[in-house]
This record gives sequence, structure tokens and C-alpha cells, in this order.
Amino acid sequence: MDKVRVVFHVSESQLWPRALKNIYNFLRDVGDQNAVVEVVANALGVNGYFTDDEVKKKMMTLAERGVLFTACRNALRDQGLSEENLPPFVQVVPAGISELVKKQKEGYAYIKP
Amino acid sequence: MDKVRVVFHVSESQLWPRALKNIYNFLRDVGDQNAVVEVVANALGVNGYFTDDEVKKKMMTLAERGVLFTACRNALRDQGLSEENLPPFVQVVPAGISELVKKQKEGYAYIKP
Amino acid sequence: MDKVRVVFHVSESQLWPRALKNIYNFLRDVGDQNAVVEVVANALGVNGYFTDDEVKKKMMTLAERGVLFTACRNALRDQGLSEENLPPFVQVVPAGISELVKKQKEGYAYIKP
Repeated sequence: MDKVRVVFHVSESQLWPRALKNIYNFLRDVGDQNAVVEVVANALGVNGYFTDDEVKKKMMTLAERGVLFTACRNALRDQGLSEENLPPFVQVVPAGISELVKKQKEGYAYIKP
Repeated sequence: MDKVRVVFHVSESQLWPRALKNIYNFLRDVGDQNAVVEVVANALGVNGYFTDDEVKKKMMTLAERGVLFTACRNALRDQGLSEENLPPFVQVVPAGISELVKKQKEGYAYIKP
Repeated sequence: MDKVRVVFHVSESQLWPRALKNIYNFLRDVGDQNAVVEVVANALGVNGYFTDDEVKKKMMTLAERGVLFTACRNALRDQGLSEENLPPFVQVVPAGISELVKKQKEGYAYIKP
């Protein structure tokens, strides 16, 4: 069976807990082995990678289950955040919007939590 | 002609009036017989099924015109809301995100009001 | 190469600065000649065409680079805003949601800033 592919767009820091719960419930419903999940954080969403430890712990658990977490380079620069201080499981993408567009073109569903 | 298919994602209770107005205007524009409309409420969005009578009346009118209203089971449980108390026109889905992903895979457009 | 197509949905007035920055960064990343960008403003989003001069100047710069800006006629009417007072680069569409659905059907990616 084809895997179910979905990209989550997080542009607000406070939406992380909801986004992570969305992903957790989605994986439980379809099964980790049937899903490809990517999260694109841009705008204020990238702050979520630098703040709350509780949130980062949940991200890491999901990353270990195969979820890809990305951060928009433009947003990091705008907010004066250093790429070196990102959690190790986060990949930087040149532009968050381009990544979201590319993934939809590849057939990923789009979710704004 | 192929019907135009669209799924609306409501994750905030206060976005219901806008979502319903969106749907009303959309149906008036394309014609009820040419449209397939589904609403997926998850997160705090499911509260809209339990509160304001004015909003529920508008939902019911749209349901009678063929709009499908659904509620995420996880969100209901999280908010301590009972499935039995849902308005009769609402269908419960196991996971709201899975429903949104499935519909997009089937060719529905996605709208976040 | 096929152009990359994307439609931005602006339903809140205060989201304009973020939306415009998104578009600016996207065009810089993929190149103006490789992109087709449309913005659909509905609900409170249409107010952005009538307020802040700084925002309108940025819109105009992007319009000159080929970005299409549209406004939902229903939203204008709801807010008592006159079509004649729209900036000259804005096109009115009968229903914002229909436009968003149509564009997705044509293969545009959808972004909610």
C-alpha cells in the first residue's frame, strides 16, 4: 500500500502543542509504518524549537518515530536564532513556503493546525 | 460535470461563523447540486457543536442542503464532550487529521477558514 | 520547466505582513520567472487593501513582479467596502472560497500564512 503523506505548517509558536497532538493521533490512527509526516516551521513557528522543553521532548519522540522536522532559514534569520542551537533532529530548509509547495506538488496533503 | 469537492478544517470554536459563511457563499456561487462539501472539526473546533444555538441552526440548514459535518473522536474525548450529545447531523470520525488527509488524497480542495 | 503555482489565503487583516514576506521569500528562492503566485483575500483579509500604506506599497511591488491579488466580492460587501476604492492592481472575484477551490483543482499548492 502507498504510504499516506502529509505536511504540517506551523507558523505560530503557540500552535506546537496542537500540531504535535495532531501528529500523534494521526500516527496512532494510520500506523507509523503507513505514514510519511513532515513539519515545516516558518515565521514565528520556528521559536518552538528553542523554547519549551516539554514540547521539544515530544518533538524528539516523534522524530524518533520518523517524523521530519524542518525550520525555514529566513525565519530563523528574521528572529535572530542560530541554526547551531537547533535541536539535532531539525533540518533547515532554504525557504519554508517553497518546501510546503514542493511537498504538496509531490502529493502530500497540507494541514494547518 | 464533475462536482467540486472541498473540505473545511475548523480547529477553533470562534471560527465557526466565518466557516459557515464561507460555505454558504461557496454553495450560492457554484450551486448546491455541483458541490460536495465536508467540514472536519477537530481540536477546539468540536466545541462549536455544543454551544451557540444560532450557529447550530445555520449548521443544520447547511446539513439539510447536503453539507457533511464531522467531529474528531480524539478531540471530543480530550474536551470531555459526549458523542451522544452531538447534534444528530454530525458524524464522528476516528481522527480528524486522517479524515482531512484522506479527503485531500481523494481530490478535495482544503480550506482553513 | 513547469512553473511552480501557489495560492495564498488571507482571511485576517493582520496576517498581510507575514503573507507578503512569505511571497517575497518564495519568489527569491524559486525565481520570479518560475513561479505563478495568486493571493485570495476573503473575510477580514480584504481590509488589508484599504488600510496601511506601507503594506500596500509592498503589495504593489509584488504585483509589478507578477503576483495576482484578488478580493472576495462577498467579503467587500459584508464589510461595506467599495470595489472602486480598491488599489488598481486588485481583481475582484465573485467568491473567495470558489477561487481557492478552483486554483487547487488546477494544481496550485495552498498556503494559509
